[in-house]
Amino acid sequence: MIYLDNAATTWPKPPEVVHAMMECLESSSANPGRGSHQLSLKASRIVSDTRNKLAKLFGVTNPSDIVFTQNATESLNLAIKGFLRPGDHVVTSSLEHNSVRRPLEYMRKQGVKITYVQADSYGILSAEKIEDALTENTRLVVITHGSNLTGSILPIEEIGKLTRARGIRLLVDVAQTAGLFPIDVESMGIDMLAFTGHKSLYGPQGTGGLYIHPDIDLIPLLHGGSGGHSELIDMPSIRPDRFEAGTRNTVGIAGLGAGLTFLEKEGIDRIRKHEQELTALLLQELQAIPDVRIFGPPPNVDRSPIVSFVVEGFDSTELGFILDQHYNIAVRTGLHCAPLAHETLGTSPEGLVRASIGFFNTKHEILEFAAAIREILQ
Amino acid sequence: MIYLDNAATTWPKPPEVVHAMMECLESSSANPGRGSHQLSLKASRIVSDTRNKLAKLFGVTNPSDIVFTQNATESLNLAIKGFLRPGDHVVTSSLEHNSVRRPLEYMRKQGVKITYVQADSYGILSAEKIEDALTENTRLVVITHGSNLTGSILPIEEIGKLTRARGIRLLVDVAQTAGLFPIDVESMGIDMLAFTGHKSLYGPQGTGGLYIHPDIDLIPLLHGGSGGHSELIDMPSIRPDRFEAGTRNTVGIAGLGAGLTFLEKEGIDRIRKHEQELTALLLQELQAIPDVRIFGPPPNVDRSPIVSFVVEGFDSTELGFILDQHYNIAVRTGLHCAPLAHETLGTSPEGLVRASIGFFNTKHEILEFAAAIREILQ
Repeated sequence: MIYLDNAATTWPKPPEVVHAMMECLESSSANPGRGSHQLSLKASRIVSDTRNKLAKLFGVTNPSDIVFTQNATESLNLAIKGFLRPGDHVVTSSLEHNSVRRPLEYMRKQGVKITYVQADSYGILSAEKIEDALTENTRLVVITHGSNLTGSILPIEEIGKLTRARGIRLLVDVAQTAGLFPIDVESMGIDMLAFTGHKSLYGPQGTGGLYIHPDIDLIPLLHGGSGGHSELIDMPSIRPDRFEAGTRNTVGIAGLGAGLTFLEKEGIDRIRKHEQELTALLLQELQAIPDVRIFGPPPNVDRSPIVSFVVEGFDSTELGFILDQHYNIAVRTGLHCAPLAHETLGTSPEGLVRASIGFFNTKHEILEFAAAIREILQ
Repeated sequence: MIYLDNAATTWPKPPEVVHAMMECLESSSANPGRGSHQLSLKASRIVSDTRNKLAKLFGVTNPSDIVFTQNATESLNLAIKGFLRPGDHVVTSSLEHNSVRRPLEYMRKQGVKITYVQADSYGILSAEKIEDALTENTRLVVITHGSNLTGSILPIEEIGKLTRARGIRLLVDVAQTAGLFPIDVESMGIDMLAFTGHKSLYGPQGTGGLYIHPDIDLIPLLHGGSGGHSELIDMPSIRPDRFEAGTRNTVGIAGLGAGLTFLEKEGIDRIRKHEQELTALLLQELQAIPDVRIFGPPPNVDRSPIVSFVVEGFDSTELGFILDQHYNIAVRTGLHCAPLAHETLGTSPEGLVRASIGFFNTKHEILEFAAAIREILQ
């Protein structure tokens, strides 16, 4: 099988991820922070080791400012619903995933005002366009680091300078870029960083997290048991406990920790280089096919390893089906939970075909994929 | 090691749970409902198989009325915050875990009124006492099926008759009882059922769910990508999609499915009988030790396999530490995230020692544990 749906979930996982999860399940999957016996302490250590690795990856000084969630969606809900208040103005982009758009639209009903800044038809958006949308009431900019549809990369550092200068907070969705591109919350001016574990961090599904700047307090999304401070009626103010009510996914977090070790070992620059080489090869192959129309940034512009396209005269869903059934090739078709981005590209409502590359893909697989497209068109 | 902290997390897990998770990780951990390729379809099938098994276990007619969450805490937050509105009155008990109490106290700040009905010093609470607390504004009763502290079982079926007769909704926390006691949402009059996967359902941490009666609509706790219906600004109304934004914990859900198969194979009546026999033995052994004071229902009353006690002259935390360090026995000490229940028992703020039994415990282990307590006291 040729798996080209890595922007949904990377697959396969490194063997050490599978191993760490089995090890945790078999020998230390008690409740972290909920007991003082050895098994519980082992579980706590796994959770804090993973938190420390994430802090290192994202340039976070105090690991307790990173809280674990089940996925990027929960992280974004916590950040958006926990931060915004009626009357606030928020600036976002037309490239956002529904995990940003829908919580924002929910907050609109609570009296929050939203401006969607339009990206161009390549999926590119300049910091100046964001700047033009800022008003006196703007309290938050929410923006994706990399589009899940076009692979375009947004100028976070420049946007961070604008927001820091104005005392506006910056929430960045790095679901597509964490583990692939360097991310440093300090130098990029990021106040909240929402990530998922199961994409380029190579952890399993059911893991994710949110970095929260120490000066920001959020209303917790979940209220419940926090291990310590049980006597309080409210969630304790201490982090990460304040935002981690209930039993965490220890086994998943063990897998995420192993994924981060894998990243450290391989090096994210090397991983990105490999995936971008394959992306360049795929772009080159597809561009040579007459009826293929490719979306996203021009070839010389930095992008994440995503190639989205349509084939004239072919329904995207049908093409995905043929690739799956006849060639054993997995891609993603449809709207990719980002309908606004499709409107931006002019591909709604038919959607497009997205091929997304991961560390374990090879040059041979890319050539086979391109050959399959050519064969289907004949 | 003797593991007696099963009320926190059952351990070990049945080998088939570990196997199912590994199998899923290696061969089908794509995104369920997010693509049409084979790997994604396999993942969807795992999720729907587990949902079907849960429906069977809880007597739910339509499996889509069960939504997956990361834990019982999230289920309870979704139910409580999604259902209650300012001005509503809610009745609950003094036995509730912080996963009920804290979301309720958060809603109190939004204008919800709460009555805590006091259990007696055995942790027993009659349906009549609940009835006395109901008012014309009562919209919801939230109650635990089994106390995580005393093991006492509450008369859900009787409470369900009261609430159904008055058009009041009933939310039941079955974190401690699912997989141990028969639960049938129809015959027990349960409108919402919050469960966790990692206790007596023998799944891994990071799994749980909520049954929601088809006539009830809740505000989703998470807004985000829902696979289908991407074009909608709001979450789709279709279940389970409405309440399952973002990528689910497929690997964990695969493990939970295997845990449910394990339950079906062993039979929950047989499992409960085994655990209750060990509980009776433990009660008998501890009662014979002069300085031990045991909490919870008298021996002839049904209870879940939890035995909580204090030893006169011993700090509970210290006792737990000695058991762990010198005997390799894991119990839980402290407040167990249920401070009100401790007030009910008169054990706050020192807490107590909780030994909780699981399917894999043996008679021999129970005798060894009692012998350790005797030896420490000498």
